[in-house]
Amino acid sequence: MKNYTVLNRINDYKDLNKLSEEEINTLIEEIRDYIIDVTSKNGGHIGPSLGVVELTVALLKVFDPETDRIVWDIGHQAYSWKILTGRKEQFRTLRQYKGISGFLKRKESRYDHFGAGHSSTSISAALGMRKAKDLQKKDSWTVAVIGDGAMTAGQAFEGLNHAGWLDPDKFIVILNDNQMSISPNVGALYTYFNRIITNEVFQKSRQTLKEIIKKVFGESGAKLARKFEEYVKGLFAPGVIFEELGFTYVGTIDGHNLPELEKTLENVKKMRGPIIVHVLTQKGKGYKPAEQNPTPFHGISPFDKITGTPIKKVGTPPSWSKVFGQALVELAEKDSRIVAITPAMKEGSGLTEFADRFPDRFFDVGIAEQHAATFAAGLSAEGMKPVLSYYSTFLQRGYDQVIHDIALQGLPVVIAIDRAGLVGEDGPTHHGVYDISFLRAIPDIVISAPKDQQELRNLLYTALYSDRVFAIRYPRGSAIGDKSEGFEKIPIGSWEVIKEGKEIVILAVGKYVQKAVETEKELKKYGIKPTIVNARFIRPFDGKMLNQLLKQHHYVVTMEDGALNGGFGSAVAEYIMDNRFSNELLRFGIPDRFIQHGKIQQLEEELGLMPVQMSERIKEFITQRSYKVVG
Amino acid sequence: MKNYTVLNRINDYKDLNKLSEEEINTLIEEIRDYIIDVTSKNGGHIGPSLGVVELTVALLKVFDPETDRIVWDIGHQAYSWKILTGRKEQFRTLRQYKGISGFLKRKESRYDHFGAGHSSTSISAALGMRKAKDLQKKDSWTVAVIGDGAMTAGQAFEGLNHAGWLDPDKFIVILNDNQMSISPNVGALYTYFNRIITNEVFQKSRQTLKEIIKKVFGESGAKLARKFEEYVKGLFAPGVIFEELGFTYVGTIDGHNLPELEKTLENVKKMRGPIIVHVLTQKGKGYKPAEQNPTPFHGISPFDKITGTPIKKVGTPPSWSKVFGQALVELAEKDSRIVAITPAMKEGSGLTEFADRFPDRFFDVGIAEQHAATFAAGLSAEGMKPVLSYYSTFLQRGYDQVIHDIALQGLPVVIAIDRAGLVGEDGPTHHGVYDISFLRAIPDIVISAPKDQQELRNLLYTALYSDRVFAIRYPRGSAIGDKSEGFEKIPIGSWEVIKEGKEIVILAVGKYVQKAVETEKELKKYGIKPTIVNARFIRPFDGKMLNQLLKQHHYVVTMEDGALNGGFGSAVAEYIMDNRFSNELLRFGIPDRFIQHGKIQQLEEELGLMPVQMSERIKEFITQRSYKVVG
Repeated sequence: MKNYTVLNRINDYKDLNKLSEEEINTLIEEIRDYIIDVTSKNGGHIGPSLGVVELTVALLKVFDPETDRIVWDIGHQAYSWKILTGRKEQFRTLRQYKGISGFLKRKESRYDHFGAGHSSTSISAALGMRKAKDLQKKDSWTVAVIGDGAMTAGQAFEGLNHAGWLDPDKFIVILNDNQMSISPNVGALYTYFNRIITNEVFQKSRQTLKEIIKKVFGESGAKLARKFEEYVKGLFAPGVIFEELGFTYVGTIDGHNLPELEKTLENVKKMRGPIIVHVLTQKGKGYKPAEQNPTPFHGISPFDKITGTPIKKVGTPPSWSKVFGQALVELAEKDSRIVAITPAMKEGSGLTEFADRFPDRFFDVGIAEQHAATFAAGLSAEGMKPVLSYYSTFLQRGYDQVIHDIALQGLPVVIAIDRAGLVGEDGPTHHGVYDISFLRAIPDIVISAPKDQQELRNLLYTALYSDRVFAIRYPRGSAIGDKSEGFEKIPIGSWEVIKEGKEIVILAVGKYVQKAVETEKELKKYGIKPTIVNARFIRPFDGKMLNQLLKQHHYVVTMEDGALNGGFGSAVAEYIMDNRFSNELLRFGIPDRFIQHGKIQQLEEELGLMPVQMSERIKEFITQRSYKVVG
Repeated sequence: MKNYTVLNRINDYKDLNKLSEEEINTLIEEIRDYIIDVTSKNGGHIGPSLGVVELTVALLKVFDPETDRIVWDIGHQAYSWKILTGRKEQFRTLRQYKGISGFLKRKESRYDHFGAGHSSTSISAALGMRKAKDLQKKDSWTVAVIGDGAMTAGQAFEGLNHAGWLDPDKFIVILNDNQMSISPNVGALYTYFNRIITNEVFQKSRQTLKEIIKKVFGESGAKLARKFEEYVKGLFAPGVIFEELGFTYVGTIDGHNLPELEKTLENVKKMRGPIIVHVLTQKGKGYKPAEQNPTPFHGISPFDKITGTPIKKVGTPPSWSKVFGQALVELAEKDSRIVAITPAMKEGSGLTEFADRFPDRFFDVGIAEQHAATFAAGLSAEGMKPVLSYYSTFLQRGYDQVIHDIALQGLPVVIAIDRAGLVGEDGPTHHGVYDISFLRAIPDIVISAPKDQQELRNLLYTALYSDRVFAIRYPRGSAIGDKSEGFEKIPIGSWEVIKEGKEIVILAVGKYVQKAVETEKELKKYGIKPTIVNARFIRPFDGKMLNQLLKQHHYVVTMEDGALNGGFGSAVAEYIMDNRFSNELLRFGIPDRFIQHGKIQQLEEELGLMPVQMSERIKEFITQRSYKVVG
């Protein structure tokens, strides 16, 4: 660690109260520098974490993390929390394989009171924790820290609504308002927050006006006056939405003014009932490149610490997201019915160009995965062609709506599933490994995965004109292969033989088609020449081709970037058994446990999913025929 | 149809404008009588539908359902809509097999603009439809009608938030406020609505006060005065939450006063931007037993029209829900850590007694399936023993939270899944057939299903003291078997041989254990004597027993009340193939299509899931060995 004068000589948060104000200010600067240093090497959520250093220090000074509970929403803003709760040294291993997580994690530290990775769960979790303490007659505080972006999600509202009803004491929601979440927020709530902040003029005259009101209404009775005052307070404080839901609103507080934060939190501790503290912070605070350009610095790959420029390998192929986004723009140019919907993932999903080119046909709905799906269904019901873009892991939040509003009604919607499969450093909260299993159960849905760039383009084109509910899944990272001009339709359910072989057929999905080709090269060493098939449709199957393949090859191998339980290989097992074939099956995919974080390749090695490993396993499979008993 | 003087001589809504006011009033009475008549025979959602007869007539008079769009939230309140949009005669077949649906359904009528069955989707869908019209430059109105209960769901908030932002013209949300949804509403929003309604005193003085305000603030500038007036309006109208989100609030309106409704809607049509119309209605209006006792009359089985008493067969066994609820009460008496959480399904889930006995440990969170799961995780994190009760179909809404907040963190929560499998008359929106498939992909989770009452009790007991994420699924309707005193622990993953046989083993799940026993009786006719196994754990498997069974029997039959794709039988197929057994497998369950409504037995017959049918299929399977090709 660098020569940090204060950070180096403290152990953890317990030492905070021993420091002078000046030392604390130095510490805050050093923590910022340390965060910038580590994330510049490891990548990470630098912007959110830099924004809450003072807030973290304030929380650790005012509350006791041994008995009180702090629930950080999403958890990617809590790097300084990690540093100050016993993980100062380990912080260097942030997001690295076997290192510490980029999110809070109960299994990593007892100070990580509740883990997360998906947004907007903190109020719900904190409320549950608070009620547990109530029932146990334990006297301690529970604090949820939630961003303004996360506040647009329905779950946050559900939590607020329930909290307002239960009316717990010692329960604080800190609204960490950086006026910009991952994408700039959308939604009426955003306008609302903005209005609160720009209301300074009114804030000043608040006292004077309150007095006038009292004079006017003094005669009409105390109750009315009090009621009126409540609304006036709403007008000038404001925070009326929260007050309406039963919270006491305190705000707005400068989130980079530590004494003000501490004083406010100390005062709040004297209050009863649920309290919302509205704190204004700046994303990327203290690091110029991130302050000036917050969107890319929300979560970033390694970058040059001086300039803030991402360190990118020259000649890296475009990401799958980018290939998707560009194809969508090309198709949308020719068809005005095409619209795109994203739940707050415009940049990540490659939709920036689409949004710029077709602002009327682009809908960033905020962190609102449920609404996104039904909204798309509504657009489809009236003849539009919606492309609903999700990260695989966030699609889990729209699952019911995909079943109930889209598939059951047979409303054609294209579901573009980005970040499908292992996602790497973001780890278990973000791996997109369940989508095949949970979508495969839904009738009438088409599920596909492209092997390369051009196939992604062709599948998107096919999907848009298929009149079906049509999902296309593709992974995080650089796209495979190349693309040509134009688009071609692919018959729904058709597979593609990549290479003819014998005895063994490898059925591979998406990016695993390339891995199958590499595995085949390895297998040659053993004189094994499998047939390789691009199973680009996970459902429906190419029954005709599969029947032929099953007759021609005894051994079947499946490869997929998804859970083995109920996934593509599972569908092949069902098919073989339902149709009473006598083939033998070997399935590669994500096993039945939570996979931790690390580079995708490291994780794949751990799981035996590298071509060399798979070729060995295949060789073993066909040479060592035996009843292997599991269980 | 009875001798309805007006209803009998009109065809549909187009005739409404030909009727005099008196005739319309008669019509409304006749529609109510007709709804009572049909639901008393067929069962159905009588309460919600009786509450909105005037509203339906008003909507059909003011809007044109050929070009305008009316989206009824949930859709179970739209019986009069069905009657007045061309389904007067068919209404008699409501909820019957091959008859019309108890919900709105796009495939049933072009006047059913958007279908539903789950709550709180209407604002999202209507907004999508409205935006489609905008993009198509079509000039028509879109109206969402949503109940106060449905408004507590996060998705409704997501929809409102997005609508406030998009600021569409010709977009109306009608808040159908009956002050009580399925269960009495919970949540701060409910208190809020209540306050609005009881505010009549203030409403009267509104005008006078507005004038005073103008006098006081006239000097301080027009802008401030306008802003102030907005808040004063909020105070006295009120509806401030909606105004804050960008809606114009109109209310409250008497939902049983047709002229007032019509006049209001006509006035609203002159306004711009999104509008919320707050309509007060009474659930069960016009039918005394339902007015007096709204909860059971929300959705009801056939009842005596005169007395309102349900027609119940004497000696019917208790429902699975009741067995669950009673067991939970017994266990909770002895362990104060046990808490129960339901998303607005207290009665339906058998939790009424628990709520009465342990009000502090019972949490009805409102229609908030996402929040429910994370809230339970929070309770678990602090050492409580939460039992999270869902209907299978609504668990789809908490899927992400079960993965991300409960399973990934390994927080022990019991997930009690009611209404698992086919649910009968509620149809495809409500069949709980996907839970095995979507839960089975989640690592570390235990999934179980009891064969009878006592096993449900024992599984619940086992789950509560297992320190695991533990799901127990059981169907709608009367429970099987009997119960004894007390509780016994069942080793996790253990199966039970019900009957020893040979050559064939039937692995049955939940209520299909009984069906397997009945199937065995049928098979005796053919001289076939299968082994019958109660596969009470869907995961983990009883590997030891299964290995033995697979060695001892060539043919394996699975029976389950869930989707074949990715379900229990699928897991068995995976196991057989992964472990290189050479058994043959026949799977019974729900095929890969949406199943319509009807009595459960009718649906099971359609699907070949009755014992006689299954026995024939099994006989065929073992006698006609052949490659049957599907494709």
